[in-house]
Amino acid sequence: MKQRVTSTPPRYSQHVHFFQQRATLVSTILIAATIVWSAHALAQADPLPSWNDTAPKKAIIDFVEKVTKEGSPDFVRPEERIATFDNDGTLWVEQPIYFQFQFAVDRVKALAPQHPEWKTKEPFASVLKGNVKGALAGGEKGILEIMAVTHTGMTTDEFEKIVTDWIATAKHPKTGRLLTEMVYQPMLELLAYLRAKGFKTFIVSGGGIEFMRPWVEKVYGIPPEQVVGSSGKLKFEMRDGKPVLVKLPEINLVNDKEGKPIGIQTYIGRRPIAAFGNSDGDLPMLQWTAAGSGPRFCAYIHHTDAEREFAYDRESQIGKLDKGLDEAVAKGWTVVSIKDDWKSIFPPQK
Amino acid sequence: MKQRVTSTPPRYSQHVHFFQQRATLVSTILIAATIVWSAHALAQADPLPSWNDTAPKKAIIDFVEKVTKEGSPDFVRPEERIATFDNDGTLWVEQPIYFQFQFAVDRVKALAPQHPEWKTKEPFASVLKGNVKGALAGGEKGILEIMAVTHTGMTTDEFEKIVTDWIATAKHPKTGRLLTEMVYQPMLELLAYLRAKGFKTFIVSGGGIEFMRPWVEKVYGIPPEQVVGSSGKLKFEMRDGKPVLVKLPEINLVNDKEGKPIGIQTYIGRRPIAAFGNSDGDLPMLQWTAAGSGPRFCAYIHHTDAEREFAYDRESQIGKLDKGLDEAVAKGWTVVSIKDDWKSIFPPQK
Repeated sequence: MKQRVTSTPPRYSQHVHFFQQRATLVSTILIAATIVWSAHALAQADPLPSWNDTAPKKAIIDFVEKVTKEGSPDFVRPEERIATFDNDGTLWVEQPIYFQFQFAVDRVKALAPQHPEWKTKEPFASVLKGNVKGALAGGEKGILEIMAVTHTGMTTDEFEKIVTDWIATAKHPKTGRLLTEMVYQPMLELLAYLRAKGFKTFIVSGGGIEFMRPWVEKVYGIPPEQVVGSSGKLKFEMRDGKPVLVKLPEINLVNDKEGKPIGIQTYIGRRPIAAFGNSDGDLPMLQWTAAGSGPRFCAYIHHTDAEREFAYDRESQIGKLDKGLDEAVAKGWTVVSIKDDWKSIFPPQK
Repeated sequence: MKQRVTSTPPRYSQHVHFFQQRATLVSTILIAATIVWSAHALAQADPLPSWNDTAPKKAIIDFVEKVTKEGSPDFVRPEERIATFDNDGTLWVEQPIYFQFQFAVDRVKALAPQHPEWKTKEPFASVLKGNVKGALAGGEKGILEIMAVTHTGMTTDEFEKIVTDWIATAKHPKTGRLLTEMVYQPMLELLAYLRAKGFKTFIVSGGGIEFMRPWVEKVYGIPPEQVVGSSGKLKFEMRDGKPVLVKLPEINLVNDKEGKPIGIQTYIGRRPIAAFGNSDGDLPMLQWTAAGSGPRFCAYIHHTDAEREFAYDRESQIGKLDKGLDEAVAKGWTVVSIKDDWKSIFPPQK
């Protein structure tokens, strides 16, 4: 190695060296301070900014901190941190009509040219006249007929494309916003917060599994394999040497009420430690969740805000919350009042 | 600040400073070299040490590197990296008898004291005499009877405990090793390798979903929610105010043959990009996997090693591989010959 020769007088060099050392020290302190401050700020950042600082927010954060704190008696291994969410009325709006039914109505209209007989045949005639109430008047039989012609007979790939195309432009009848924006911002924050804390988030909905899967990953960050929903039977067949799965008009699982714990056990195979719903249809899921050993978190979203969203509970045709509300109060589950506990409801307009 | 005064002669101080600088430089170079060398060593470490350096190993690694290389035309997003594995004969041994049937036989023996009538009633009488072949002689009806009394009637929690207790000590009739050690070491390495490369690994087995879930996480690193299997119907009910799920003697899904793509679509909702099986029962899963767009990997494990394991294929009652073998050859799928392609078969004895 060749020795470097400096022409600077020694004393001056010493001073430079001294200040260089000091500068390095000061930089190091500044960098360290910045790191500590950032970490602190991050730790302090509100994970649920759209929630008011009322009891539900505190209960959620207390629960999450309790089960994720290593060494705590309530610690739950990440693998066991399963959280399940109803979809309609819990993650997105379900009024004035389930969006999946809106999809079915739009499909009847799109398919009508191939079915001239629908002009005079109920429930299709009413649907085509824009009279959804008339279509529903026929009761379950009519609804099942509409669901069958719009949800079955095609391959799973074809159906996925139909849903993907439809959801790209479908709008809410009241707000005119895209349906994928009629989702609850506080719940998006909750999903993200739980995932950041090592939870695996699942949808457990009465809605159709194949109706949800094409878009929930983009909207909620929940992948298709973490969606449990109602489903029909499928048939494997070869078409021109290529395998397809055909959607049959036979019910496989009605993932509502008692069907929810059954869906959870069948699909997930682990009992959730946290569950969120908004109607009596979610009660068995909440009961099943609560009955596990160790810390559990059960919550109902209560639609109390007629001004900013919709207000409905015990008497509602859609999303009826009656027995569930009583049981939540009796068992001390968290009841989220949208009016009181949510600062904002929907994501900002894009 | 107080200026530090040094009594060292300037020139000496300069030398020290020079060597300190050099020392720092040398350390930095050494550390950097160590990091580069470690990364290189890590990259070079064989992810599949129990596989011989034959074509299948090369095909697997080529595929994985291709789909995980960002910017490559074959790149697959991590979310889409779904790999499915049959269980019996693919991840663990299925000879001389499916281990789940061994479980059923053991359960019949354990339950016999409560069923004195079984002493004279087939297929139970044969089972109790240790004559499994006699028990199977009655065909499907007898098998279903045995499965019903051993797999249904209890709650899901009770069944989980029964399986967990049984598998803790159940041994292979030929080797005497624990059944959970009768798993294929090369496949354990493959599962770990795929997961390290961002794949989500699923079991898609004809075996019972509730029979596999209690132990596969520990043995294969596959969590219960990534297990697809045959299942029975469940019933939700309240017992002493506590919800339970009762296993009913009604079939929900037979996750074999055409049932495998149906199970994949129903449970996972995404088409795998890689699938591994060993019998004709896996053929529809491999066809379904291969039919997707973009790069796909389909492989059969071919049991060719009578000495170290079992040799069987076209004529076997269990794990018959006939049509599948022809199709694998015709389509250019990977066929893993256990005899030729696996250096070792089972994990080292504990």
